[in-house]
Amino acid sequence: MDKLSTLSRFKASCPFLGRTKTSTLRTLCTSTSPRFPTISVLTERATKCPVMGPALNVRSKELVAGYASVAGSSEVDQIHKEKGINVPANATVEMCPHASAARAAARMADDLAAAAAQKKVDSGASAAKAAAAGCPFHKSVAAGATASTAPKPSAPPHKASVPGGFDYDRFYVNELDKKHKDKSYRYFNNINRLANKFPVAHTGDVKDEVQVWCSNDYLGMGNNPVVLETMHRTLDKYGHGAGGTRNIAGNGALHLGLEQELAALHRKEAALVFSSCYVANDATLSTLGSKLPGCILFSDKMNHASMIQGMRHSGAKKVIFNHNDLEDLENKLKMYPKETPKIIAFESVYSMCGSIGPIKEICDLAEKYGALTFLDEVHAVGLYGPHGAGVAEHLDWDAQKAAGNSLDPIPGSVMDRVDIITGTLGKAYGAVGGYIAGSMDFVDTIRSYAPGFIFTTSLPPATVSGAQASVAYQRAYTGDRQLKQVNVREVKKRFAELDIPVIPGPSHILPVLVGDAALAKAASDKLLTDHDIYVQSINYPTVAVGEERLRITVTPRHTLEQMDKLVRAVDQVFTELEINRISDWKVAGGRAGVGMGVDSVEPIWTDDQLGITNGTTPRTLRNGQRFAVDPQGVAAARDRFNVLLGPMTGTLQANRPVGALELKTGAATLPLSNEELKVPLPALVAAAA
Amino acid sequence: MDKLSTLSRFKASCPFLGRTKTSTLRTLCTSTSPRFPTISVLTERATKCPVMGPALNVRSKELVAGYASVAGSSEVDQIHKEKGINVPANATVEMCPHASAARAAARMADDLAAAAAQKKVDSGASAAKAAAAGCPFHKSVAAGATASTAPKPSAPPHKASVPGGFDYDRFYVNELDKKHKDKSYRYFNNINRLANKFPVAHTGDVKDEVQVWCSNDYLGMGNNPVVLETMHRTLDKYGHGAGGTRNIAGNGALHLGLEQELAALHRKEAALVFSSCYVANDATLSTLGSKLPGCILFSDKMNHASMIQGMRHSGAKKVIFNHNDLEDLENKLKMYPKETPKIIAFESVYSMCGSIGPIKEICDLAEKYGALTFLDEVHAVGLYGPHGAGVAEHLDWDAQKAAGNSLDPIPGSVMDRVDIITGTLGKAYGAVGGYIAGSMDFVDTIRSYAPGFIFTTSLPPATVSGAQASVAYQRAYTGDRQLKQVNVREVKKRFAELDIPVIPGPSHILPVLVGDAALAKAASDKLLTDHDIYVQSINYPTVAVGEERLRITVTPRHTLEQMDKLVRAVDQVFTELEINRISDWKVAGGRAGVGMGVDSVEPIWTDDQLGITNGTTPRTLRNGQRFAVDPQGVAAARDRFNVLLGPMTGTLQANRPVGALELKTGAATLPLSNEELKVPLPALVAAAA
Repeated sequence: MDKLSTLSRFKASCPFLGRTKTSTLRTLCTSTSPRFPTISVLTERATKCPVMGPALNVRSKELVAGYASVAGSSEVDQIHKEKGINVPANATVEMCPHASAARAAARMADDLAAAAAQKKVDSGASAAKAAAAGCPFHKSVAAGATASTAPKPSAPPHKASVPGGFDYDRFYVNELDKKHKDKSYRYFNNINRLANKFPVAHTGDVKDEVQVWCSNDYLGMGNNPVVLETMHRTLDKYGHGAGGTRNIAGNGALHLGLEQELAALHRKEAALVFSSCYVANDATLSTLGSKLPGCILFSDKMNHASMIQGMRHSGAKKVIFNHNDLEDLENKLKMYPKETPKIIAFESVYSMCGSIGPIKEICDLAEKYGALTFLDEVHAVGLYGPHGAGVAEHLDWDAQKAAGNSLDPIPGSVMDRVDIITGTLGKAYGAVGGYIAGSMDFVDTIRSYAPGFIFTTSLPPATVSGAQASVAYQRAYTGDRQLKQVNVREVKKRFAELDIPVIPGPSHILPVLVGDAALAKAASDKLLTDHDIYVQSINYPTVAVGEERLRITVTPRHTLEQMDKLVRAVDQVFTELEINRISDWKVAGGRAGVGMGVDSVEPIWTDDQLGITNGTTPRTLRNGQRFAVDPQGVAAARDRFNVLLGPMTGTLQANRPVGALELKTGAATLPLSNEELKVPLPALVAAAA
Repeated sequence: MDKLSTLSRFKASCPFLGRTKTSTLRTLCTSTSPRFPTISVLTERATKCPVMGPALNVRSKELVAGYASVAGSSEVDQIHKEKGINVPANATVEMCPHASAARAAARMADDLAAAAAQKKVDSGASAAKAAAAGCPFHKSVAAGATASTAPKPSAPPHKASVPGGFDYDRFYVNELDKKHKDKSYRYFNNINRLANKFPVAHTGDVKDEVQVWCSNDYLGMGNNPVVLETMHRTLDKYGHGAGGTRNIAGNGALHLGLEQELAALHRKEAALVFSSCYVANDATLSTLGSKLPGCILFSDKMNHASMIQGMRHSGAKKVIFNHNDLEDLENKLKMYPKETPKIIAFESVYSMCGSIGPIKEICDLAEKYGALTFLDEVHAVGLYGPHGAGVAEHLDWDAQKAAGNSLDPIPGSVMDRVDIITGTLGKAYGAVGGYIAGSMDFVDTIRSYAPGFIFTTSLPPATVSGAQASVAYQRAYTGDRQLKQVNVREVKKRFAELDIPVIPGPSHILPVLVGDAALAKAASDKLLTDHDIYVQSINYPTVAVGEERLRITVTPRHTLEQMDKLVRAVDQVFTELEINRISDWKVAGGRAGVGMGVDSVEPIWTDDQLGITNGTTPRTLRNGQRFAVDPQGVAAARDRFNVLLGPMTGTLQANRPVGALELKTGAATLPLSNEELKVPLPALVAAAA
């Protein structure tokens, strides 16, 4: 029986396919094009299903992703064939062509129902669950494993699950069930950030647009015109992939140039680029930890997973000290002989709570006890310091600013005292990849010994040049960093006025405390569904149970009107879901720093550094204004590629995007001639007003 | 004292700076542009140095990289200042501004001298070494550590090396010395592959061009016009970085589309993309190995480092079986109860020797003993099978070809029987990134539990779309794969005629046995210096000591004339360096499969599959011919992006490169209208002839 006949026969009783036209079925059967349009069609049908529809609709935006990335990879015809379904009358859950999707939907309904039970969420989830229970195909799933005599839902039998052998499929199902049970199962939202409309993205539906408030493209450098210009030029000259590892045909002048740029940024002798900073941290800590004889690793309790993995992989002894607790660290350091190799691994900006590590003081302890310092500046590079080198640079603002682009380290400066700095190209620099910076012999040792570096295809030339253009631009231009902090201050202030709990901290991180996994997820969903605002909820294991939050990223490119909308929407969702406000937490004794006596922390960016004192602060954008592109930044970035790509002196190439709200979708012209580039920043903003 | 004065005073006695003009010194001192042009200037000077010059010249092409990536990151002025050099009269090695570069050069001279001692290499190395010994700055280095009373060369004192504490700097130096001593220290060549001139690249000097014979861009897809067109369009619409992890704002329709494409390619339920296949292998094996209770990992002895690391990180018991040895594997499998979870991890094409794993037979054993099969198809995807899905697909050629683009798995086929397939986007697909494919629940488990996936910024949209365009193109077009194998056969045949030893194998891998580390390096250097041919030597630990080789990559885009040149050059270098030929190895009892009775192995691509039988074989290019772009491949690739990027039906965009030797450097037009795209492949090639 061919696919179309199978589908057509099944259509009559299938609640998913019931409203599907035969022509659509034909498309499903014959399409050789990428699967996601097919999946979109399917999902659209599914949301119209009278039975599963309500449950699906609640999270339809997530579902597009959920389907496509998880359930979606099994298509209708394939499942039909595998399961031998051609008599729909005896259909069971196991035979349902959408069993997995239904199971996922039922799980989501469960998640929402649990939230409703706790906090009386009126999101229709209970009704959805009840409706789902009425579906002849999904009854046993929706009713739970204990309430039915029907066979339990299970994955299709697998070739490796041979009689007497281990049941691998059951193992997978059990592992996934654990995630569902502790609410840590992740549904990926389908978010497509539009270069021309930053910070706007479309969802799985290209016509459905949302404002993104949680991307790590902290400054919008992912669509900076000089970055994209550089990448277009590089693609034309050097093509796509690097074509090999750094040792075999994958090491080019652009890779070396980026590493030299990063070494210069941190005023270190050398730098080395990896696929990601996850790999950089993992590779560096595991290599050092395993090779330094008897090494002890001292790790801040809040360190990122990449460092934790690197330390685990090293096999070295690990000692965890309390977050930013110098006394605890010293007590633990002094337990070991001075001559024992030690590494203190910590971060500058902790990304989930926004605290900042005491870098200088940790350097003092390192010197006292003979330890190396390993500082992760992932959430700080591009964002702190006069040249964007991070918090270590920021702490010596005046001296670092005065030193300009000099390659000399500044003796006694915090950045000079830190032995190893790691950073990312994937956040404030808007690219991808990670790196380490430090002494030449340190870098050469990692280069020579870390398998995660040695045996990996190097990053594509265009990725690397785009990243370098971004770093160069941000070294030359402070305005984006300043405006970001100005906007963060503004949003924090407004939340405080509305009694909305923001975990206090001195950095740009803006964590809105929710304090419950199901509620945090429901709040994120409501913002997306009701307000077209995308803020991912952060749940266990990324944060502690009871400290679940919405982690909001404010950029220099969010407009005043967008901030208004965000604050109003969060306020409304807090009301609707009855989420605790600051005053509630005070009554409850406080949590995660909220309602515990310290309502705000002095920001690390001073008024002087922001230009508030001398009136040079960049102005927050308003809807309709174009963002400013800094001419010095553009010139600096272009200058880097004179030798390899040829000089660029004219107007930035047409048909290259520049993110601004007034621009229409599609190809846009960047009307910045050299003359315009010479106009100072405030004038440009004013002209667009 | 300012930098310029320091440099000028030092110039007189410094053999490196001796010929440098004051204006150049000024540039060195004041440049804020990227460092590599500066380094190029420096290197150029260095190679002209009367003392170190000869040694440096021998490897000048490598040195550009050596300087820039290792020594180069410390610039002249910085070192001067740090070391307090202003009285050159008392200069020692430790005070030399180029100590590291000199040390590296001296080590290279040692390497070459060692080769010369063994094989009477007349490469001027001994002379160079002698000359180097005469240099007042480098004497003690060149003479060796034992021959001088001068202080040993050492890195600058480091802040962390506090009195009584561990000497981290000494540790780094010692670790690097080990690499130099066992000849495994790697100098990265500076190779910039030109999209318009594939397989030609420029070195650190943009005017110095070489032919690349060792890139893993196996098919030239890194510059395929539809790939680049797709990337340009994606950059314009979605900008550079993804902006987050897959869970937080970094999951878009392009990521999902690529995963669905890959799942479809392997006829599996799902796929998941990682930063690299190193990460994919590491994350998958470490997650499964650590979570499957009591899991035993069975690992082929020749497995890639990424799998070895993943198994190590899992903490599970590992059992190594002899390479491709089914009997050994079975003996080891049967030692454990059937119900114990087991994973057999192996590869399809082993990249360094070119052997092919017995996939079907390993699946038989897996079923017999209840094990999962984990197959790394990194060096096979894009290259084997009617749709490029790899060797597992290739083994059922007729059935897989007949199934076309159907998503249905083919029951009983080898690809269907393999549980887990991993592949890369960074080799035949010319992009970057890696992936796994398998059952939905397996993929969802890895997606949910592997830190290396969860906590990493996802790949940029343009990288992902470029990769998908490449996969789609290769699914639709077999010609590149066929022509590659035709060319490999030709080069193997010619080497055999000249008694040049190629390690026998059934795949596209072409390892020319040298059998000695220093000789392999010398051969690679000679090819580069004397013939402008770049083939990296492969030494320990990548291959066993005594089995060092040149690993040659023949692509469908190498011309007949380029092959001629390669074969002649290798022949000449073998003569000049007195490297063993096949007949020599036969006398010596054979090595690594050479001279051991089996001179060649039946290729896995049959004459039928290559189109030899029916006369449809693509023709090897000749100099001046343009390579063929397949219209169906272009249409298939474009079709994938209709929804997200809009339909493309016109001529491929102007100003997009197409690699072909007759094209000039710089922007080139791709003159393929829709009409031309409809011309069948052989006609296009013939027309260009």
